[in-house]
Amino acid sequence: MNYKVVLSILGKAMLIEATLMLAPLLVGVYFNEDSYLSFLIPMAGLFTLGVPLAALKTKGGSIYAKEGFVIVALAWVVLSVVGCVPFMISGEITGFADALFETASGFTTTGASVLNTVEGMSKSVMFWRILTHWLGGMGVLVFILAVLPNAGAGLMYVFRAESPGPSSGKLVGKMRHTARILYGIYVALTLLEALLLLCGGMSVYDAILHAFSTAGTGGFGVHDGSIAYYNSVYIEMVIAAFMFLFGINFNIFYLILTGNILKALKSEELIVYAVMILVASITIALNLLFTFDQVNNFWQAMRYSFFQVNTVSSTTGFSTTDFAKWPALSKGILLFLTVVGASGGSTGGGMKVARMCILARSAKANIRKMIYPRSVVAVKFEGKTISQETERGVLTYFILYIAIACFCTLLLSCDVGDVFDNLSATLACISNVGPGITNMVGPMASYAAYSPFSKILLSLVMLAGRLEIFPIIILFVPRTWRKG
Amino acid sequence: MNYKVVLSILGKAMLIEATLMLAPLLVGVYFNEDSYLSFLIPMAGLFTLGVPLAALKTKGGSIYAKEGFVIVALAWVVLSVVGCVPFMISGEITGFADALFETASGFTTTGASVLNTVEGMSKSVMFWRILTHWLGGMGVLVFILAVLPNAGAGLMYVFRAESPGPSSGKLVGKMRHTARILYGIYVALTLLEALLLLCGGMSVYDAILHAFSTAGTGGFGVHDGSIAYYNSVYIEMVIAAFMFLFGINFNIFYLILTGNILKALKSEELIVYAVMILVASITIALNLLFTFDQVNNFWQAMRYSFFQVNTVSSTTGFSTTDFAKWPALSKGILLFLTVVGASGGSTGGGMKVARMCILARSAKANIRKMIYPRSVVAVKFEGKTISQETERGVLTYFILYIAIACFCTLLLSCDVGDVFDNLSATLACISNVGPGITNMVGPMASYAAYSPFSKILLSLVMLAGRLEIFPIIILFVPRTWRKG
Repeated sequence: MNYKVVLSILGKAMLIEATLMLAPLLVGVYFNEDSYLSFLIPMAGLFTLGVPLAALKTKGGSIYAKEGFVIVALAWVVLSVVGCVPFMISGEITGFADALFETASGFTTTGASVLNTVEGMSKSVMFWRILTHWLGGMGVLVFILAVLPNAGAGLMYVFRAESPGPSSGKLVGKMRHTARILYGIYVALTLLEALLLLCGGMSVYDAILHAFSTAGTGGFGVHDGSIAYYNSVYIEMVIAAFMFLFGINFNIFYLILTGNILKALKSEELIVYAVMILVASITIALNLLFTFDQVNNFWQAMRYSFFQVNTVSSTTGFSTTDFAKWPALSKGILLFLTVVGASGGSTGGGMKVARMCILARSAKANIRKMIYPRSVVAVKFEGKTISQETERGVLTYFILYIAIACFCTLLLSCDVGDVFDNLSATLACISNVGPGITNMVGPMASYAAYSPFSKILLSLVMLAGRLEIFPIIILFVPRTWRKG
Repeated sequence: MNYKVVLSILGKAMLIEATLMLAPLLVGVYFNEDSYLSFLIPMAGLFTLGVPLAALKTKGGSIYAKEGFVIVALAWVVLSVVGCVPFMISGEITGFADALFETASGFTTTGASVLNTVEGMSKSVMFWRILTHWLGGMGVLVFILAVLPNAGAGLMYVFRAESPGPSSGKLVGKMRHTARILYGIYVALTLLEALLLLCGGMSVYDAILHAFSTAGTGGFGVHDGSIAYYNSVYIEMVIAAFMFLFGINFNIFYLILTGNILKALKSEELIVYAVMILVASITIALNLLFTFDQVNNFWQAMRYSFFQVNTVSSTTGFSTTDFAKWPALSKGILLFLTVVGASGGSTGGGMKVARMCILARSAKANIRKMIYPRSVVAVKFEGKTISQETERGVLTYFILYIAIACFCTLLLSCDVGDVFDNLSATLACISNVGPGITNMVGPMASYAAYSPFSKILLSLVMLAGRLEIFPIIILFVPRTWRKG
């Protein structure tokens, strides 16, 4: 382990976080709130620690896969731990476990909350709460890549470890260029959404925050009823459309921008993702229409179902109704979508559609090999043969996802709730969706009932989910910390 | 597909089933029941169809992997479909779906029932109901291998397809010899258990049937309260001990019989299985002691917990108490054990401990490879390096198990029950445990509430579980049915 390089990049991440806290600080000043200390104190701490760390001499120090994983994992842990300080100083969330849960939920774009009501929160602290979604969506270290001068070779590993999806997610040859394109698309789509929400009658503050929350596929809302508060078909459809867009691989936007529209539309992952959402929306709408007495006609059913399917598929977690009360089939589909999640290379979480496709094809290839033992069957995706390495990576990810889900469910069951409440909570956290499908952790409830231990555990699970498990697992492997 | 060979072996399986129906017929005669037609009619049908099929000339026809899978899958489907006829003729179970479910549950040693009460059942039909457990436990085609004269080469594929566990389960070089040793151990242990139960005060009839049910790790009981009916610590501990034994790889018994006791005790799978049961029993006992008001002291808690852990781990499914009412952690552990199941090469179901070990080590090896990309890491189990083929088989099995579980849960959710009732029911059926952990499908309930469609679906899922998925999946692959 090359500690100097790790610490140097951690230092830079701290400086970035300190700088970003300026935003809520200014919001507080604008709204005449006396919350400035809530941000100045952590900023001071971050600068004091970050400046000497960032200045560490790292010449000759290289970053390999291992360092990449460790940097990403530690950076996210540090960002979350420091990021929760404003909540605690302002007193708007008391208790370290609660504040950490809320911050980790923010950065990982989960959107699970320990708060039963958010409407009393100050504008500045609320701004920070939802800004974490926007930062976490694209990745904080990708941000470093995009804005800082060249910090040395090997950062590819950092980039890979932070980017979601089974492939490395490289858009074009040069990494820095890629990071800038990604953030460019991200900023543009966010602004567009905020503008459209403004047109729907939202205040500037609400529009910006909801755009942040959607862009990161986070799900924190500004009001207690989440999106139901507005009771506007226009706002629901704008947000649903953007949740869909932010759940797509950003490669697709790059292809469209560079004129390769046909190639973009031929993406297998896009097609599977879109078909999945369509089929799920219609099935749920029919299920609601026939078995749920709060729904009167097909279009009302579709309005609920299309919004909720997009919110769960993209792993955002907004709500317009309490789907924990929906019939079994609808809830089952939402739980399935929770596990599947969004596309690789998007800001969404979950296992990713690309991984599910690779798993399905890997299984198919093996069944074929059982029938014809001497045949050679390659696993293909997006027109390319998947390397054995990628396939094994996907299979290992799958095993670890299930193992963490089981383990966390059992640990939570030592605390409160039924085993299925805890399973639903765990899946909602590891897939970064936020709300679960049971009453205890559903869209109208919160995670407040869990003990501090469970909240810290779930924070770690959210981080594992957002960073696609390996970086967090590797932190717990003793071998990682050996010299050399 | 070599149809003649397939049909010929199916014919033999039918003749075996017809012959075995003599047993309940004689039981009926002994107890002066007028149930003889319930057995004579299906026997006549089986002979009429079976004799010409078994006599088909198959010279030159070979059995390869594909034929092996198809023979096993079809044989089990045919046995279940014909095996349900006595229930229907006797009128003790009305409706084809109900009778099929009960029979498939019998042969697959699941032990899930559609009956809310079994105490009114005639002795002969009850005998047939539980005899299916005993036949299904070791495998019906293994039985053919053990008793019939040499039916041609390539039967190894049949044997492999029917035997549980990731390895081929060969005890010694020669297959027929192996089949006989397996059945020898099986019969001896069954007799021993029946004898010990007799000593505990059971009637001869009850003792034999409970020994059948335990040996096959089935779980059908003769009384409505399952084992709670006897309220005897001795009987509970005898059954628990035998459930444990029948959940062990039969290789272990062979090693012990041939004097290799040390080698037997060093089996990794045995150690993991035993430790898992021990840890689960103690954890559940403590959980019950501290949070369940129906338990007063540690030994009472251990009595419940040791029995239920063994019944679920071995995938038998007897009960001494309603564990659907237990606290969340205990239920969570039972659900986890449901999925894990027993050891490979035992009569138990589930994913098998061996597969879980291989999955864990495969994941570990891949994580290591991520930290040190150039290292070569082999996956070892029981002291041997696992071949890539075996590893891929285990991974594919895992994917299919989860995929079937999701799919079946969603389909059941179109019918009745909450999504988690249906998840629990699906897992209990695919792992051949029987009772689930929710009130709807728990040990004191039945599967009666499901629609005929759901019951047939669950029958198929039980068969998929018992035959380790591939044979049943292959039936649905169009390619299987091509000539050549």
